[in-house]
Amino acid sequence: MQVKKAVVILSGGLDSTTCVGVAQHAGFEIYALTFDYGQRHSIEIEAAKKVATFYEVRQHRIAQLPFLHSIGGSALTDDDIEVPHTGIVEDEIPVTYVPGRNLIFLSIATAYAEVVGAEAIYLGVNALDYSGYPDCRPEFIQAFAKTASLATKVGVMGTPLEIMTPLLDLSKAEIITLGTSLGVPYVLTASCYEGQEVACGVCDSCRLRLKGFKEAGVRDPIVYARLFTC
Amino acid sequence: MQVKKAVVILSGGLDSTTCVGVAQHAGFEIYALTFDYGQRHSIEIEAAKKVATFYEVRQHRIAQLPFLHSIGGSALTDDDIEVPHTGIVEDEIPVTYVPGRNLIFLSIATAYAEVVGAEAIYLGVNALDYSGYPDCRPEFIQAFAKTASLATKVGVMGTPLEIMTPLLDLSKAEIITLGTSLGVPYVLTASCYEGQEVACGVCDSCRLRLKGFKEAGVRDPIVYARLFTC
Repeated sequence: MQVKKAVVILSGGLDSTTCVGVAQHAGFEIYALTFDYGQRHSIEIEAAKKVATFYEVRQHRIAQLPFLHSIGGSALTDDDIEVPHTGIVEDEIPVTYVPGRNLIFLSIATAYAEVVGAEAIYLGVNALDYSGYPDCRPEFIQAFAKTASLATKVGVMGTPLEIMTPLLDLSKAEIITLGTSLGVPYVLTASCYEGQEVACGVCDSCRLRLKGFKEAGVRDPIVYARLFTC
Repeated sequence: MQVKKAVVILSGGLDSTTCVGVAQHAGFEIYALTFDYGQRHSIEIEAAKKVATFYEVRQHRIAQLPFLHSIGGSALTDDDIEVPHTGIVEDEIPVTYVPGRNLIFLSIATAYAEVVGAEAIYLGVNALDYSGYPDCRPEFIQAFAKTASLATKVGVMGTPLEIMTPLLDLSKAEIITLGTSLGVPYVLTASCYEGQEVACGVCDSCRLRLKGFKEAGVRDPIVYARLFTC
């Protein structure tokens, strides 16, 4: 029987790590792909390596994207823009938005999938808790899948690539419940925007994570410097 | 009056250089974007710099994409695959196809356009002489434009980015006729797959270029090692 292969975009955060668990559970051989785009929290890349080792993935590639850093435009890559600590913003596009990020990530994952012969790409986007990022919305994902099929040899000559977004309609609590049932090693993951060894506990990303664990009734296994009471 | 800005994807070849001429003629301030993805013909990057200097572009950025090289899968980036010299192939996808290349290039150009506030991206793709590359077809470009508008802040909140492909329906001869009328400096451009200082004159890319100049009735100002008689 031929092995089913999937590229999983792995940031080292909670969502993408859950995606690895979901893809492995679905029987895929995993080709993990991590992007190094000068994000402040390069500790995420270390987390991604630990997750890839834990899952014994077939291949873990780290793609350097220095250009995404050098053009700036986001609090996550641009040292002149402060990361937010003002609570979770729902209705507007936040400063942590990185221009074109998922578009670029999916495009490179498409090339990687074509070369290794993968039939699916897993991306841990999430429409409910997406904090207003335009490139986390379902209509973007659908449009991308169509574009990728038109752009590639496999799409033109064979089966189109599937873009799998198993977390799209889940709340953070539901993601954590799902991942916990699959034995996802959340202790290895990093979510904090500040990117220190110990999570700050007060940035928007820490708040979202802590709220999710609380609602899921699961203890967050990572260590926090402070605990935001939500 | 506000300046209109355009990102032009500039490889240093004949088509993309013509695009710079077209964009400048249309009144755009030019943000040139060149990709360094370990292509054999890095001489193209030197050509791109000369073209950017000639046109006095507002900004010329060179984006490093080492990952596209490291995953291989194309004669243009993979040393184990020979570049073709067998004549122009029309009906199948050639070995010089780089997986996902235009998808990745347009995605990064979209991010760049968003950051600098450009309203258009110029890409020198060409459907007639596209040699079977899936990501040079009009249906791919249309699908990408829709995806990019959904992916970005400008697309969601304001005017969608336009993907301009002025060469799409032109033959190589028509491109050369257009460029010549606009004073495009073809002497600065590089097309040869072999990537030497002097163009080989016999690879598929040289043949296509020579045939185009011949049909346009214009003298190709670059120097060739040998001349393929077409």
